[in-house]
Amino acid sequence: MGDKKTVYVVSDSLGETANSVVDAAASQFDTDRIETVKFSHVKTVRELKNIVLKAADKDAMIVYTLINPELRKEFYTFGRERDIIMIDVMGPIMEKMENLLNSKPVLQPGIRHQLDQNYFKRVEAMEFTVKYDDRNDKKGIELADVVLIGVSRTSKTPLCIYLSYRGHKAANIPLVPEVDVPKLLYENPENKVIGLTIDPLLLNEIRLERLKALGLSQDSQYASIKRINEELDYADQIMKKIGCPVINVTNKSIEESANEVQEYF
Amino acid sequence: MGDKKTVYVVSDSLGETANSVVDAAASQFDTDRIETVKFSHVKTVRELKNIVLKAADKDAMIVYTLINPELRKEFYTFGRERDIIMIDVMGPIMEKMENLLNSKPVLQPGIRHQLDQNYFKRVEAMEFTVKYDDRNDKKGIELADVVLIGVSRTSKTPLCIYLSYRGHKAANIPLVPEVDVPKLLYENPENKVIGLTIDPLLLNEIRLERLKALGLSQDSQYASIKRINEELDYADQIMKKIGCPVINVTNKSIEESANEVQEYF
Repeated sequence: MGDKKTVYVVSDSLGETANSVVDAAASQFDTDRIETVKFSHVKTVRELKNIVLKAADKDAMIVYTLINPELRKEFYTFGRERDIIMIDVMGPIMEKMENLLNSKPVLQPGIRHQLDQNYFKRVEAMEFTVKYDDRNDKKGIELADVVLIGVSRTSKTPLCIYLSYRGHKAANIPLVPEVDVPKLLYENPENKVIGLTIDPLLLNEIRLERLKALGLSQDSQYASIKRINEELDYADQIMKKIGCPVINVTNKSIEESANEVQEYF
Repeated sequence: MGDKKTVYVVSDSLGETANSVVDAAASQFDTDRIETVKFSHVKTVRELKNIVLKAADKDAMIVYTLINPELRKEFYTFGRERDIIMIDVMGPIMEKMENLLNSKPVLQPGIRHQLDQNYFKRVEAMEFTVKYDDRNDKKGIELADVVLIGVSRTSKTPLCIYLSYRGHKAANIPLVPEVDVPKLLYENPENKVIGLTIDPLLLNEIRLERLKALGLSQDSQYASIKRINEELDYADQIMKKIGCPVINVTNKSIEESANEVQEYF
């Protein structure tokens, strides 16, 4: 244990890159001891100097992404003069990339957030995914980039959301023994179908939690091992019949499972 | 113009942090000239040495996140011996954080992806958001952390998805002059309602695109300036009556608008 420390995240854009570096590093320590304060869209020397003065006052460390090399240099110098720990996330890689490509950077902060075609593709993918979530729908299969199938509580929805955020139109279809799936699924057009499976005991736990959250009786067959095994067997048959790849999501985070899904398409 | 260059992203976990640093840097150059190859879950010296040999062969630059300081050091030394540009994303910040906190890191790769409470909170938020997307529903208002309102095509859905991915239960309610909103909205419980507005001319363009994408006639009143102005006036009245903050999403990316939303709650 120890006292709390502050990390200032400073960026000429939103600060998402610096934030993710800080999060990754902080996760290796006692995260409760680290408080992050974000300064976005910082673009003048004056603002940067004010931040340094505040940081000196708070004994904060500064992690920054600034595109302009002069601002970077001035910020660093000013911070070091006040004995502040300065971590430059973009400087080293931008300088090396300049050498590698033998070309100058455009020096435009926030360029990634521009409303270009790629952006509209992502918006479209997210809207698609919300529309075709948990639906037994032929049209979803036709229009999707990827179709996830699996029994209830195999992370179909969060996985689809993650994938859509990355620009992929992801649909998902629940597998329930009592409900037939669309015939088109068996044709597996463009090999876009991917199955999800999970350890029955973990699924049992997850479903019990789910029943609790919904205020329902824990005796429901939904969470019984017998029913779960039946459902997983049924899903297994369908996936074999389709001949699609199957990802086991047991103890995997959404990011990890999504990584596997992306490797398939 | 110039030839293509390769960047190797190497990580003992998924490589998302290194990837986002590479993307941010690459966006400042001609991104078509940069090809990224990702190596995830790399954990042994042998694997790292193989990657260096491949990189030397391809004249690739290496950007890496490794938690273990000895692996980091060995990788760096081996890479530099082969004259490879080596960018260590995690090393500098982890060393400084160790000093700042005066505590040792746990040295466990992928710790952020653990299935902890925070993780389940995010999954729950995503499922909530899919369920309460574009719904005129009292229950959504009751249960949400944040409720977005706005006319059609003001980015309600993508914004909610982004927020849910960050762990917030986000609901959205469409504003249409012909449909009454739930009474509860006017009470604005816990000040969770936020309005979205947009420039009428941009909305006109977006809706024309939308009609085109749906294969519908561009003459539809949906995209007419007259109708758009009526809708925006109506929305404006509702938002004033509620007294909620209003965010203008014109020319803003989802990330930027979401940043503003998060500042309000």
